[in-house]
Amino acid sequence: MRTIEWDARSSELRLIDQRMLPEELKIASLSEPRQAAEAIRDMMVRGAPAIGITGAFGLALAAIHSKARTTKELRIDLEEAASLLREARPTAVNLGWALDQVMDEIDWEESSCDKLRIAVLSSAQKLADEDVATNRRMAENGAVLIDDGDTILHHCNTGALAAVDWGTALGVIRTAHEQGKRIHVLVDETRPRLQGSRLTAWELQQYHIPYHIISDNAAGFFLQSGKVNKVLFGGDRVAANGDVVNKIGTYMLALAAHDNAVPVYAVVPTSSIDLSLASGELVPIEERDPNEVLSLKVEGRATAPREATALNPAFDITPYRLLTAIVTENGIVYPPFLENLGKAVNGNLK
Amino acid sequence: MRTIEWDARSSELRLIDQRMLPEELKIASLSEPRQAAEAIRDMMVRGAPAIGITGAFGLALAAIHSKARTTKELRIDLEEAASLLREARPTAVNLGWALDQVMDEIDWEESSCDKLRIAVLSSAQKLADEDVATNRRMAENGAVLIDDGDTILHHCNTGALAAVDWGTALGVIRTAHEQGKRIHVLVDETRPRLQGSRLTAWELQQYHIPYHIISDNAAGFFLQSGKVNKVLFGGDRVAANGDVVNKIGTYMLALAAHDNAVPVYAVVPTSSIDLSLASGELVPIEERDPNEVLSLKVEGRATAPREATALNPAFDITPYRLLTAIVTENGIVYPPFLENLGKAVNGNLK
Repeated sequence: MRTIEWDARSSELRLIDQRMLPEELKIASLSEPRQAAEAIRDMMVRGAPAIGITGAFGLALAAIHSKARTTKELRIDLEEAASLLREARPTAVNLGWALDQVMDEIDWEESSCDKLRIAVLSSAQKLADEDVATNRRMAENGAVLIDDGDTILHHCNTGALAAVDWGTALGVIRTAHEQGKRIHVLVDETRPRLQGSRLTAWELQQYHIPYHIISDNAAGFFLQSGKVNKVLFGGDRVAANGDVVNKIGTYMLALAAHDNAVPVYAVVPTSSIDLSLASGELVPIEERDPNEVLSLKVEGRATAPREATALNPAFDITPYRLLTAIVTENGIVYPPFLENLGKAVNGNLK
Repeated sequence: MRTIEWDARSSELRLIDQRMLPEELKIASLSEPRQAAEAIRDMMVRGAPAIGITGAFGLALAAIHSKARTTKELRIDLEEAASLLREARPTAVNLGWALDQVMDEIDWEESSCDKLRIAVLSSAQKLADEDVATNRRMAENGAVLIDDGDTILHHCNTGALAAVDWGTALGVIRTAHEQGKRIHVLVDETRPRLQGSRLTAWELQQYHIPYHIISDNAAGFFLQSGKVNKVLFGGDRVAANGDVVNKIGTYMLALAAHDNAVPVYAVVPTSSIDLSLASGELVPIEERDPNEVLSLKVEGRATAPREATALNPAFDITPYRLLTAIVTENGIVYPPFLENLGKAVNGNLK
């Protein structure tokens, strides 16, 4: 199944509740846009592409379940839902992008509410289908970079769970694996939410790709010791200069790879590229609940003093100088990024 | 109290069981060298100076509780205990150093077993007292580098818990705090054993020094954003060229500090400096139990698939080029380290 699916019979959105993995594969059914916003905020669903599509389907929920009798009333409901959804995760560009895609396609001159409802749902469906196709193209493009026998260090989760299906960086690994290349993945835990050990390890298990989990701290050691051939991750937002805003920890990982001359690839759909943004440091970084850091237990014991406080930024900025290339559905973008990212967005990469 | 104390009444070694912190301050009493070796291996006690002194007192336990009737028999018992203790943690140089200090001082020509027993205990006691004095001198030397208002990023635990008392890098912070300098500490968790959030946070709480816990991944973000004035950590072994072998994650932290022109200080006693070692990559790196990585729980749920495996190196190597200076009890060592570390060891720093 897909990570995100519209259930036509019940007119509900069905999502894998990723907070329950790897212990339990639980499917949540959402019927209100408010629930979709909560699913994004609480990270029931996460990953740049996935939260974009969840946002789009959130609008579909608003359209289908709205009690509006006129298109004017429906418009009010949809705009309210869009603003609610937009605020759920401020840093990811895909969320706003997907909401805009759906909202911009609506023909407000249409007089039939029901036709509008169906049009919104179709837009969301189309985005979801396009996301899968985009992921497949990114994976095909990126798999060219992977060699037989590679050990790949991977950050966070960028697999099917991070998208509608297939995934971005993990999609590349999956395609290379299906091409018969032997791959070993070092999965970093990705504190504080542990998307690496919880989600990426679980996915690799399903795909029968060999892996080991490592602490985030251990990445430098493995890069130092010459045991890593490539570093792969996704991206929540890419600036015009190639700076990649991604899950916290990406910057140090890229730095350590660069220090050891190991190639670093970000794998992102062009919808994550924000050409209006000159550089990464202009992106507001989401600050999340300190309890994500403080609530760990080992053998039933707390791992921080009761009185402790924490700071919990969700993203950092990997400067473009640390990247070997950025893989998109329109091709592999090499430096100079300032020149070539625009071409990738417009589909003009040679 | 001290982290490690000899109880003269019961002839036992009393240690804070650091695995129980921060939830519980539990004191363990050890009466056999085997228990001391286990305490080191299982990280009931950890930190380069602390395990050295625990090793020395492990020899005292062997001497005091040995049933030997001749010095020859006692020698066999002591040498057996020394080799047992030496194997408990292979990477830390202090352990071997402390064992050698005690063993080398023994006068095997002495005919009285009881005199030998007392001599071994006295040697261990002397090392413990010297460790506290050394820590105090390191702290005084290092505190000069700390400015009023500094935010200091700190890795692992290097406080009183890592030594007999006072500590190394955290000792510097503590002394600067006692000098009236206002300091804010960013405590990284230090996965996989969480010595930062479990132990350093607990110590800072006792000393009333303000701090926030951050995930190890977040260090790069705070360094990028210009909010960190200094990075401090300890060291398990320092090579002649200044490479520092320290808790896993130190390398990436130093790299990120260096990339943002934030000064990086290792604080180590000269007993951790191994001039016979040309560079850090020659040190064998201890590989620990994968369950240290895999056994986390969040809200009662497993954070890795049941079938998952992990790799768990305990240390990495921070190349000397990333260090601003190395603080010792004999003074602050600046580059060129190859020249100046020898002077520090011999007490000839100008």
